[in-house]
Formats: sequence, structure tokens, C-alpha cells
Amino acid sequence: MNHKMIRNILGWLLLFECGFLILPVIIGLIYGEFKIILYYLITSAISAVTGLLLKLGKTKKTTLYARDGFVIVTLSWIVMSFFGAIPMFLTKEIPNFLDAIFESVSGFTTTGATIINDIEVLSHATMFWRSFTHWIGGMGVLVFLMAFLPLSGAQNMHIMKAESSGPSVSKLVPRVRTTALILYLLYFGFTLAEFILLAFGNMSVFESLCTALSTAGTGGFGIRNDSLANVGLYSQIVVTVFMVLFSITFTSYYLILCGKLKEAFTGEVKAFLMIYATATVTITIIIRNCYDSLYQAFHRAAFTIASTTSSTGFVIVDYEAWPKSAQAIILFLMFVGACAGSTGGGIKVSRWVILFKGAIRELHAQFHPGKVKNVYMDKKRVEDATVNSVFAYFGVFILLFATSVIIVSFDKCDFLTSFSAVNATINNIGPGLSMAGPIENFYFFSPLSKCVMLIDMLAGRLEMFPVLITFMPSTWKR
Amino acid sequence: MNHKMIRNILGWLLLFECGFLILPVIIGLIYGEFKIILYYLITSAISAVTGLLLKLGKTKKTTLYARDGFVIVTLSWIVMSFFGAIPMFLTKEIPNFLDAIFESVSGFTTTGATIINDIEVLSHATMFWRSFTHWIGGMGVLVFLMAFLPLSGAQNMHIMKAESSGPSVSKLVPRVRTTALILYLLYFGFTLAEFILLAFGNMSVFESLCTALSTAGTGGFGIRNDSLANVGLYSQIVVTVFMVLFSITFTSYYLILCGKLKEAFTGEVKAFLMIYATATVTITIIIRNCYDSLYQAFHRAAFTIASTTSSTGFVIVDYEAWPKSAQAIILFLMFVGACAGSTGGGIKVSRWVILFKGAIRELHAQFHPGKVKNVYMDKKRVEDATVNSVFAYFGVFILLFATSVIIVSFDKCDFLTSFSAVNATINNIGPGLSMAGPIENFYFFSPLSKCVMLIDMLAGRLEMFPVLITFMPSTWKR
Repeated sequence: MNHKMIRNILGWLLLFECGFLILPVIIGLIYGEFKIILYYLITSAISAVTGLLLKLGKTKKTTLYARDGFVIVTLSWIVMSFFGAIPMFLTKEIPNFLDAIFESVSGFTTTGATIINDIEVLSHATMFWRSFTHWIGGMGVLVFLMAFLPLSGAQNMHIMKAESSGPSVSKLVPRVRTTALILYLLYFGFTLAEFILLAFGNMSVFESLCTALSTAGTGGFGIRNDSLANVGLYSQIVVTVFMVLFSITFTSYYLILCGKLKEAFTGEVKAFLMIYATATVTITIIIRNCYDSLYQAFHRAAFTIASTTSSTGFVIVDYEAWPKSAQAIILFLMFVGACAGSTGGGIKVSRWVILFKGAIRELHAQFHPGKVKNVYMDKKRVEDATVNSVFAYFGVFILLFATSVIIVSFDKCDFLTSFSAVNATINNIGPGLSMAGPIENFYFFSPLSKCVMLIDMLAGRLEMFPVLITFMPSTWKR
Repeated sequence: MNHKMIRNILGWLLLFECGFLILPVIIGLIYGEFKIILYYLITSAISAVTGLLLKLGKTKKTTLYARDGFVIVTLSWIVMSFFGAIPMFLTKEIPNFLDAIFESVSGFTTTGATIINDIEVLSHATMFWRSFTHWIGGMGVLVFLMAFLPLSGAQNMHIMKAESSGPSVSKLVPRVRTTALILYLLYFGFTLAEFILLAFGNMSVFESLCTALSTAGTGGFGIRNDSLANVGLYSQIVVTVFMVLFSITFTSYYLILCGKLKEAFTGEVKAFLMIYATATVTITIIIRNCYDSLYQAFHRAAFTIASTTSSTGFVIVDYEAWPKSAQAIILFLMFVGACAGSTGGGIKVSRWVILFKGAIRELHAQFHPGKVKNVYMDKKRVEDATVNSVFAYFGVFILLFATSVIIVSFDKCDFLTSFSAVNATINNIGPGLSMAGPIENFYFFSPLSKCVMLIDMLAGRLEMFPVLITFMPSTWKR
């Protein structure tokens, strides 16, 4: 383990966070929230000083191994969330520090589950900060660092692999640093496009900005207590389209820009779009009698399914009033998730595809023991190591999920609450069902349950392995 | 595919079933139910004639491949359940044929989920038949055939592998036939022991017999509407002990008889007993305030957890009145199941152990890509093929489970009902929660949901692969 390099990168991270924290200060200045921005400035300063202290001393050995990558990513996210919570606590907008940490982790992991009962009384600075954490967390803070830090390619790759989503990560261009830059440029471009389109609608410029940042990271924090229920049809349609766009791997957009249209539509993208379309049509049929027109049902279904599959968690309708079958579909779609390499959460479509194909391969192996078939995706062979790691991913996921639900159920909440709350946090969705439903929040959970869900959100966003590896004693030996 | 041999074995199966159906006739004679036994005799005759017709013609090629084994097992269970349903339908005790099929499949798969509202008005013949189907299904009807049919060892092995539970099947002795005979002798001995012990308690001889047969198969059909709630403390304790005993692999008992005590306590058996003990203690603590004394709480916890982990499904207390955390634990224990090679259902402890160890191996593989570690159980290396097939098992299980819950949720039942009903059938437990709870039954489900649960029960008992392979078009090619 290269402790010095880990400290060095964590130092850099805090210097970047010091910069991030200046953005809500600017927002606060515009709205005259001088008392509030003082706390953001203080946190920014603490962040800078801690960052510089961590960077003290010369780093001789700069080599990083895969293991270091996992540890760096996990620790970065914990440190980043910790510092992100401080201003919300200092301004007393979230008077309990554990709650502030929950809100911050929920922000950075792009979950969007909130513990705030009344969002509309928050300062603009804090409202912006909540949405901005989504934006940073969506593409990944370390991918951001990669674009600017002078690290060698191989080292970058270990970190990028550990932070990016999906079973296997490939570079767009040979240089990791350029890849990171392209990803963030695309990300920035899409966010800007959504912001401009939203600003043309009913939303204020500020609300358009926050909503665009939250959609981009597929987070779900809004600035209204009723989420997007009353922002108007136009804005809802724009958000629906962008939730779907941000669920698709960014590699596809790069390929489209390069003119490789056919390569852009990978098996995963097609599977995702098919799942999205099928689910929307099915839900429309199920809820058609709840509304005056078929279009009204379709609009609500299209938005809600986009919000679920992209793991955003915006709400325009209380889907708990829908028939139970619609709710069951939503509950299971939460597990499916978005495409690998997008900002969306969940288990990811490609993992499900590999699981499915891998299971079929094993079925064949039952009566052709000698003949091992390979698993193919997009006409390329999927490495056995990848198939096994996908299988293991599901194993770890099941174990963490079941343990979490059992612990949360000690809160005297019904099974649907504990099941859907864990589901909504581990898959980085946001709202669940019942007491954790779309018109409720996570305030009432016990501190223990909140801690469990903190771990779930981090493990879900970082896709299990980095978090587990960091806390395995053997990682820290020697 | 050796069609002739498949027909031949199905023919033998029906000849055996013709014999099985004579047993309820004897019971009916004792209790003077002459009208009822007429229908059992008719079914027995139809079974014999169909069996003989299937066996017509000479079988030249007697070779069986693994694929044939899977197909034989699946078809046998479908045919057996079909004929098992006929008498219950003919006697009008179950006036709907789909319901009769449901009850029969629930019996043979040792699930114990019933669609009968009032069990106590049934004839003794039918009460006995329901419990007897559990007994036949528990150890497996083809294992029974193996003990008597003059097939060669290799062919037997394919069939036995496909019907037995757990990720890998080993023979007790070199000859498959002798293995099958030993298993059934042990099974018979344990059942007899329980019957005698129960007969000493409050239960009548008839109830002792039915209860012993149901416990042995870890089924759960009783002869009273309130299951075992009012049979007295002594009988409940006897059943608790035997539910645990029937959850343990029969190989262990054989090894104990051979004096190999140390080898009998495999990692799986230890893990099972540890899970049982931990869950019982935890539940006792959770429910201690619901009862007058700690012992009362402990007794109910010990029984309920034994009933859940063994997948029996007997009930002595309405656990829906317990705190939600206890219910969540029960709900997840249903997935754990018993030991491989026992009569218990669920996913099986050894699969969870392999899943857990396999996942840890993959975690290590993340940062030691070259160095592949092996998975060990009881100091023996678990073949990679076995690890992969366990992973695939979970994959298939998740897909079937989620699909089933979504379809069942169209019945306008709450999520807990659809989730727990599928859970209770796919894991062959019996009662679930909410509308499918311990004091309810499965009568109200729609025909579609019942069909889904029929498939779940069969797929659960035969452990997915045989059922899937039988219905894969490629199996039937050439």
C-alpha cells in the first residue's frame, strides 16, 4: 500500500473541494445570504488547510496498484462527503451532524434521499450545494481530478476503474487524462443544454440550474417539497428526456460524435432502451384508468420510469396511489439500473445481461461438461474473469441487501418500508415506498438505520468492491 | 435424447404411483370412507394402465445422458403431481382441478401451501394422501425408484444428480442403487422414530402418522386448520427436534452410523446449526416481551425458526403479531434453506457458503488478477464448475423470483403478499406473510398466479436447472 500517494491524492481532493465550496458562496452572494456563506467559506478554508497538510512531504514512490486505487476511491468519497456535510451542519439548516452526513452522502452518491422535512426554507447556497454534490458525484470526483492531475496513465487507470460504473471499464482514447477530460466535457455540455432548455420553461434560472445539475448526476434533490410535480408539462418532458440521456453510457455519445453511429448503439444501450420502453408501455396500460386521458397516463409513466431506471428519483406523481402491480414493477426496476459508464445507478443493465448469458452458459455446461461456451457481448468475448466478477457482484449485493433490510426493520417500520428504503439507497434512487415513499422522507429512521443506509449508498455508488476491499483487514497488511 | 427410456421410466413411475395410491385406500377402509376410496382405486387403476402403456415395446438403447436425467426428473414430477391431483378432484374435496393440481404439487414439492379453507372436513384418506405426498417428495420419488429398478449405475447417477438437492451430489457407497436404499432406510427409520414419539403425546395415532410424514418431507400439510398450535408442548418439541434433524444432510447420519463422527459434522452442517441457533436466540430476544416467560418466547422462536429454515412451514403461533424485525428475519431465512442432501428446501446453506467464499475469491482477484485462489469446503477444493453453477443458480433464481413477484402482484395484493407468497413457494416453505400469512391460505390467488407458483414450487424443489433444461428448445433438438 502506497500510503504517501494515497495521502497526496486525498490532499488534492480537498484542495478541489475547497474550490467547489466557493460556488455556493457565489450563489449566496447573489441572494444576499451573507451569514450562510460565511460557513461555506469557513469549510472551504478548513478543507484547503487539511488538503495542504495531507500533501506535506515529498512523494518518492509514485507507483499505484489496483488495491491502492480501490482504497483511494473509497477514502476520497468518505472524506469528500464528510467535508460536504460541514456547511449544512454549521448553518444549522441540518442541526444533527449524522443527518448532515446522510444528506451529503446522499448527494455525492447521487441517491437523492433526503432527511429534510421542509426543503423550501433552505438557503439558496445550500439548495445549490445539494444539487452540485449530485453533479460532482455523477461522473465521479476522481475522474475530475484525473483530468487535471499530473499522474501517469497506469496509475490513473486503477483509480478510474475503481470509480467508474459497470463490470468493465475501457478508455475512449489511449490517454486516461484525455478520456477523463472528454467525459467531463460531454457531461458539462449535456448539463448546459438541459439548463438552457429548462430556463425557457416555467422554472426560474436558479431552479433550472439546480434541476439540471441534479438530473445530470441522476441524483434527485430538488428545491421544492413536491419535487417536480408542479413545474409544468414542458419542464417535465425536458427532464424526462435528459434522465434517459444521462442513463446511457457516455462512450456512446463520444462514438456518435466520432461518427461511429452503429458502434454507439451497443447491446447494453439497446437493452436499456427496450427495458425503458416496455416498462413505460406496461405501466401506461396499468394506470390508464387512473387518469382522464391516455396521454396523461403515458406522461406520468414515462417520467416515473425514466426517474426509476436512471436512478434519479424525481417525482411528479404519488405512484403509491397506482395499482400494486405498477409499484412492484417500479420496485424491481430499481435493481436494474442504468447503463454502465453513465451517471445512473442501480446494478446496471450490462451486469444483468452478463448474468443472464452467464446463467445460460452454465445451463449448457450441465450436460456438456467438456465444452465451455464463452459469453459474448457486442460480438466481443466477455472475459471469464469479468463474468465471475459480475456473479460475485450479485453475491455481495444480495448479502449486503438482506443484512441491511433486517437491521433497518428493527425501526418498527413495515417490510415494504425497510425493503424499499434499502433498495432506494443501495441503488442510489432516492425515494422508496410506504414510509420511505415519494411524498415522505428519511428523517424518521433511527441513527443505526441511517448508518446502514450510508454504507449502502456508498457501496452502491462505488459498486461494492472498492468499499469492501478498503475495509478488508488483509488489504492493510504489510 | 433417449425417448424410449424416458417413456419406460415414466411408465415405472406410474406403476409405483399406482402402489402409493393404495395406501390412502387402506386408511379409508379403516375409517369406513368407502365412497372416497373408490376414487383412489380408480386413479390407481388409471395410473397402472397408463404406466403399462408407456412401458410397451422393447427398449434397445438403455444409455442415458445427463440431459436425459434432467428431462426424466422434470417430467416425472409433473406426471406424478398430475395423477396425485386426480383423486382429490374426483372426491370433490377440491372441486377445481387447477386447485387440486396446486395442492398436489405443493404436496410433492414439500411446500405445504394449501388452497383448502377448511382442512378438518377432509376425509382421512385425503388427509393421509396429502401428508404422504410430502414424504414421497421429500427424499425424491426417483431416488425411490433407483433403489428398486434394474438400471446400470451410470444411468442412475444422472437421474439421482438431477433430483437430489445441493450444488454437488456424491454417492454414499460405490453403487447408486445401494446408496438410494440406504437413504430411504435412514429416512424410514427417522420417520418411524418421530411417529412413535408423537404417538406417546396428545396426538391420535392417525395425526401422529400424518405429522411424522409431513415433518419427514419438511412439507407442512397438517390435519388441523390451526396447524400445530394446539397439539401440546410435548408434541411441538418433538416436531421441532425432527424438523432440525430432517434439515441436515442424510450423508451425515450415514457417516455417524459408520462411526465417522468428525466427518459427519461438515462445514455446511455446522453453518446450518449456527444459523439456526443465532436466529432462534435473536428472535427470542425480539419477542421476549410478547410472552409471560422467556421460555415461552424461546419455545415459539425455536419452533418457528426450525419450521422456516427446514422449509417445513408448520405454525404454532401467528408470527405476524411479532415485531416487524422478527418477520424480516423470517422472510430472509426462507431463502437460506436447509442443508444440501436433506429433505429441506430453500437455496441451501452450502450454496450460500460457496457464494460467500466465491465472492471473497473474486474480491481478491480484483487486485491479484494473475493469482486465482481456489474455493475450499471441508478442506476439499470446490471445482470451479461447481462455483460457477452456484453463481448461475443465484442468477436464475433472482430472475425467476422477480418475474414471479411482478406477475403475482397483478392480483391486487400488497407487496408483502406477493413477495412472501413467491418466497414461500419457490423455497418450498408453505405459509408466507400478510394475505398469504400463517393463518391464511392460497385459495384467493388468481389462476395465473397459481400457475406461476406451480412453476416456482417445481423449479424450487428440483433446483431450477432440470426444469429450465427441460423447457429449453435446444434440449429437444435432433
